[in-house]
Amino acid sequence: MEKALLLSGGMDSTTLLWWMRARGDDVHAISIDYNQRHRVELQWATALTSQLNIPHKTISLDLSTIGGSPLTDRTLDVPSAASAEQVRTVVPFRNMLFVTLAAAYAETQGMSELYLAPVRDDFTAYRDCRRPFYDSLEESLGLGATRETEFRLHTPFVEWWKVDVVKEGIALGVPYEKTHTCYEGRRPACGRCDACAERIAAFRDNGVCDPLEYEVDIAW
Amino acid sequence: MEKALLLSGGMDSTTLLWWMRARGDDVHAISIDYNQRHRVELQWATALTSQLNIPHKTISLDLSTIGGSPLTDRTLDVPSAASAEQVRTVVPFRNMLFVTLAAAYAETQGMSELYLAPVRDDFTAYRDCRRPFYDSLEESLGLGATRETEFRLHTPFVEWWKVDVVKEGIALGVPYEKTHTCYEGRRPACGRCDACAERIAAFRDNGVCDPLEYEVDIAW
Repeated sequence: MEKALLLSGGMDSTTLLWWMRARGDDVHAISIDYNQRHRVELQWATALTSQLNIPHKTISLDLSTIGGSPLTDRTLDVPSAASAEQVRTVVPFRNMLFVTLAAAYAETQGMSELYLAPVRDDFTAYRDCRRPFYDSLEESLGLGATRETEFRLHTPFVEWWKVDVVKEGIALGVPYEKTHTCYEGRRPACGRCDACAERIAAFRDNGVCDPLEYEVDIAW
Repeated sequence: MEKALLLSGGMDSTTLLWWMRARGDDVHAISIDYNQRHRVELQWATALTSQLNIPHKTISLDLSTIGGSPLTDRTLDVPSAASAEQVRTVVPFRNMLFVTLAAAYAETQGMSELYLAPVRDDFTAYRDCRRPFYDSLEESLGLGATRETEFRLHTPFVEWWKVDVVKEGIALGVPYEKTHTCYEGRRPACGRCDACAERIAAFRDNGVCDPLEYEVDIAW
């Protein structure tokens, strides 16, 4: 049976894809086009799944009609990594919406296992990256499914720091130059936003250079 | 503080709107445009909220990209009321998606109470109309909200049959001629689909005529 994977095209979910493939899972990738500022990540998700020749579904959900976050509202600025305003990048209930949409698609395809890649670094700003949230969501999905179903949400990296994810990914041969992280959606990456800063730190702490191009000089 | 209401423009949620107004609630209506076959219901939702002069937000979520139901896939037929295939009209996780989207919008507006109108008749075909599902969802929303929040989902009609809802609505003066029910999206209503059949029965069991026009003769 195929297993569904929420693939953003970023570092964590791409590492999870390689991790699943390494243990022989038959993966069906799902991406969400939420009109995100950095929606260029979707092209990278497509490139990665094409390379592996696995099924890839993109579901549209225009969160700009909800607003409230600079990631979906182009009139707001993305805060820099140094800013205490990081919570401002939160898109309300983003992960809950993504998981539920992916579960809906999974149901139509007869899949009942969904993998996703929240990591420990995400806890601080994003409450919907903690495992108790996914335990509760798993129960809601089981109760709300069309037919009685044991719907499973797997978050194998939820206790891992980003630095551990990169370490694993390097061992697995993840082509990180084909992943996308920058919140500004820039290639070369801006190197300044919080997402870039976290990524750079994860590579640096592994003692390796990120193969991605940056607009600014990075001291590795 | 305003209270959010998921308003489809149908009989149940419109009755809930009148019920909330009767007890003095400050209502902020939310409708979902999910590219439903009967999306004409959204026009009726707008007409109703305009009449009451209350805020009304419509959020788009094109569920046709997920498919699996004749309500969102125009290539599938809507089963007739007599059909045993009623479960086929289920849009996977529709209520979970609607509630989560409404909660996301509510969060941006500072609202933490959401009302919706599942009724007892919905139980059979739709598992996501039962209260245990909403209890679980309430917990998931609390755990997934951007900040620690007591998010409340209110389903005051969940133990009521549709016939009780109509009885209450007649007493409250709900303008039922301005609500929409027909799954086929037809005005006059088709009178044959499951939604029409349930509506007609609810009025008939109250001993009153439905003020709505039907394509076919209805024996009241």
